[in-house]
Parts: sequence; structure tokens; C-alpha cells
Amino acid sequence: MRIDFLTLFPEMFEGVLGSSILQKAQEKQAVDFHVVNFRAYSDNKHQTVDDYPYGGGAGMVLKPQPVFDAVKNLSSEAEKDPRMILVCPQGERYTQKKAEELAKEEHLMFICGHYEGYDERIREHLATDEISIGDFVLTGGELPAMMIADSVVRLLPGVLGKEESHLEDSFSTGLLEHPHYTRPADYKGLKVPDVLISGNHAKINEWRRKESLKRTFLRRPDLLEHYSLSDEERKWISEWENR
Amino acid sequence: MRIDFLTLFPEMFEGVLGSSILQKAQEKQAVDFHVVNFRAYSDNKHQTVDDYPYGGGAGMVLKPQPVFDAVKNLSSEAEKDPRMILVCPQGERYTQKKAEELAKEEHLMFICGHYEGYDERIREHLATDEISIGDFVLTGGELPAMMIADSVVRLLPGVLGKEESHLEDSFSTGLLEHPHYTRPADYKGLKVPDVLISGNHAKINEWRRKESLKRTFLRRPDLLEHYSLSDEERKWISEWENR
Repeated sequence: MRIDFLTLFPEMFEGVLGSSILQKAQEKQAVDFHVVNFRAYSDNKHQTVDDYPYGGGAGMVLKPQPVFDAVKNLSSEAEKDPRMILVCPQGERYTQKKAEELAKEEHLMFICGHYEGYDERIREHLATDEISIGDFVLTGGELPAMMIADSVVRLLPGVLGKEESHLEDSFSTGLLEHPHYTRPADYKGLKVPDVLISGNHAKINEWRRKESLKRTFLRRPDLLEHYSLSDEERKWISEWENR
Repeated sequence: MRIDFLTLFPEMFEGVLGSSILQKAQEKQAVDFHVVNFRAYSDNKHQTVDDYPYGGGAGMVLKPQPVFDAVKNLSSEAEKDPRMILVCPQGERYTQKKAEELAKEEHLMFICGHYEGYDERIREHLATDEISIGDFVLTGGELPAMMIADSVVRLLPGVLGKEESHLEDSFSTGLLEHPHYTRPADYKGLKVPDVLISGNHAKINEWRRKESLKRTFLRRPDLLEHYSLSDEERKWISEWENR
């Protein structure tokens, strides 16, 4: 997979793309990152990339020309048209399902705005996907773009080793994860539940399934709408409801 | 405000904290960032920070000791107990409201796990806040922690200049933003709506309010549940509904 980031702040990417799993993914040639400053594509002698909004108002707006030209140039290097992703509060909410969809692509391109709006023509005529990371405001699209890339790259074949695998994959079963504990069994008086050190694997599995369901029931009941409960799970839930 | 990041990958932070608004916020002394590798607090001669999960299973779990000791040490430098934020899929969904709440604090501390679970005792006895950034899986908590910090720091007094201000603040009015356009009025045949170059400010304002409502109605009708519509807005919506 190839991933291009179009940004005015390329220096934000180095540490993140050069560490841990994302670095290993590049070494394994599972992914090839390109961080491109689209200011370099400005046809203006001062290399401006933004201008005042038509109709007045505060803030600046990213001009169409540098972004269109950067995209055209980068796309011409590729065999297939890339997915062009705009990160913005107006987009569809990002989920694991979308990560899995993007992981099947050959080429992703992120356009990262920075404390500015995009000229609407970028949104309408370049973007294939508008993604929102949530209902909050950031200074730029760089962090969400890196985050989406991270969630996608870890799904590519061969990227995650066994050790790193699916402990936190809360959404793979449709429920939140059960609690985890490691040594020591007693840390300054804070103890691990007895069942986990009992050696009784049937009991351990039951405890884990029950805690996973309980946490989901208490914290994210909306997830249960898409989950088909067994008779046993139904019984557990009615116990908690009656408390 | 002081913000500490406890991480095993401190090199991920430099580019992000050293660029753009976050860098300026430090120069203006609005925020003071500390990136701390909690591996340094391991009391084990191999400086291990993780161990196998009790009860078996794949993946590793972050041990309590290094994290508890790092937090204890860093907290002792502060006058007041910090907000201790764990980023995890089980947490409450992050929103602008939470950003505004955190922006009132003096000291935030983020514990960033990395492709591993946390020992439950960290969650229960250290964390004051568990925050989820959305229903998707990442290789670590570093990117969401930086993102939360970004959304908080931009709200601190004096951090944002006028130019950078509130163009993208989709959530400040309760609606999504209207489209933005800048020069040229005709970019390779793609044109700016006539009204925006009309000079008629009453019409421009009406167009913007209408487009903002329309976009919200089409893309995020859930936001309208908490928005009180004027008679005019109600009329617009009934037009769109009847199409």
C-alpha cells in the first residue's frame, strides 16, 4: 500500500511514521509513506496556499490550485486513482469497518488542512471520502490522518506480530474487552481476582466473557444492539438490570 | 497548563509538539509539555514494562509498577493532583464539551499504552478519566493523546491568533459549517456560487445559514436534536424533506 500525506507541516510526521509498528511496516515493505508539502505546488511566487473567504468572515481558506496540482502530480505516479481522503468535522464518522475497507486499497491520499477551511471545490471535486474523527475541533488534519493510517496499516498482512496482536481489539467480538491483569498478584494490596490464578480455564473463560459483557452493558449499551445474545448472556444481563 | 505524556515511544511526540500551534503555545508559555518514557521507572534490571496476562491468552499487559511509580514521581512535582487520562476503546467518547472541561485544568497526564492492554489496577486506581476517540483500533495511545492535547491547548487563552480562529469550529453553533470559497472565482470551470461575489451581505448571510443547516440536515441530523430551530429554519427543512 502507498499512503501520501499532503500537508503544510511535514515535520509533524517524522516521529510518528518512524516509530514502532509504522516503521516496521515500512521495513517489511507493507506500506510506503510519502509526506508532501503542497506549498511546493503553489504557482504563486510567494508560494501562498490560502486566501480570504469570498463573502467575508474570519479565517483563511485553502486555495484550490496548490491542492489540485499536488494531487494531479502524485496521482500520475500511480497506476490506479487513489482514495482521496479529506479529514473534516463534516465527514462520516470513522469506524473499524471503514479501516477494514481502506485496508483493501492500494493507494490512499490524505489532504490535511490546518486551522483553515478548504475551498469547497477541493471537497466536491477531489475528495472521494470525507472522514470525521469525532465531534471536536483540532488545529489541523495531520493527527487524524496519521491515526487513520495507523489503524489501516496495522490491518495489512504481516504487519502485526503475534505478541502485538489483538489484545485491544475491542470491536472484533462486538463487545468491549474484559479486564487484563499481569504479575504481581498483589501489588501494594491491590489484588488480582482469584479466578485468574485458579488455573481453572473453564472458569477463567466464563469470567472473561461475563466481564466483557458487563463492561459493554454498563459503558456502551449501544454496541449490544448489533450483538446477538446467548441465553446465558441474557440471564446475566437481567441480573445486572435488577440491581 | 502542564501536560505530561507517559509513553514507551517518546520519539513520536517531537515533530507534533514542535510544530505549528502547539509549538507557539509553548513559546507563549500557555502550556508546558513533558514527554516521559515510563520504562525508566521500571524497578526490574531489564527494564521490562509488560508481562504475560494472568489466565492466559495472546498479547502482553502493562505492569502496574512502572506506571504507578512514574505517576507518583511526576505528580509529586505538581501542587495539585493531575487529571490522569487513559485513552482506550472502553472510555467515554471524546467530544468538544470534554475538551472545554479539560481546558480548565492546570495539569493533565496521559498514559499511553502501546499495542498492549493495561493491568486493570492502572485503570481502577490511577485513571481519573478514560477517554475513547472512537470505535476503531490503533497500535497505541500516543496519537489520540496528542490529538486530545491539541484540541485542549487551542482553547487556552492567547493560543489562537485571529487568523487561525474559528473557521472550522463546526460545533460552536451546534451546526456543521457552511461551504467556504476563495479566489479564483472560476478555477478551470469550477465556479464560486454567484451570491458570494454579489456583495449583498444580507443574501450572503442567508445563504451561509441555509447551507450550514442543509449540510447538518443531510449529514448529521442527530445534531439537530439539540438545536432549537427558528421558524425560517423549520420552513427550509420542510422544503428539503419534501424533495
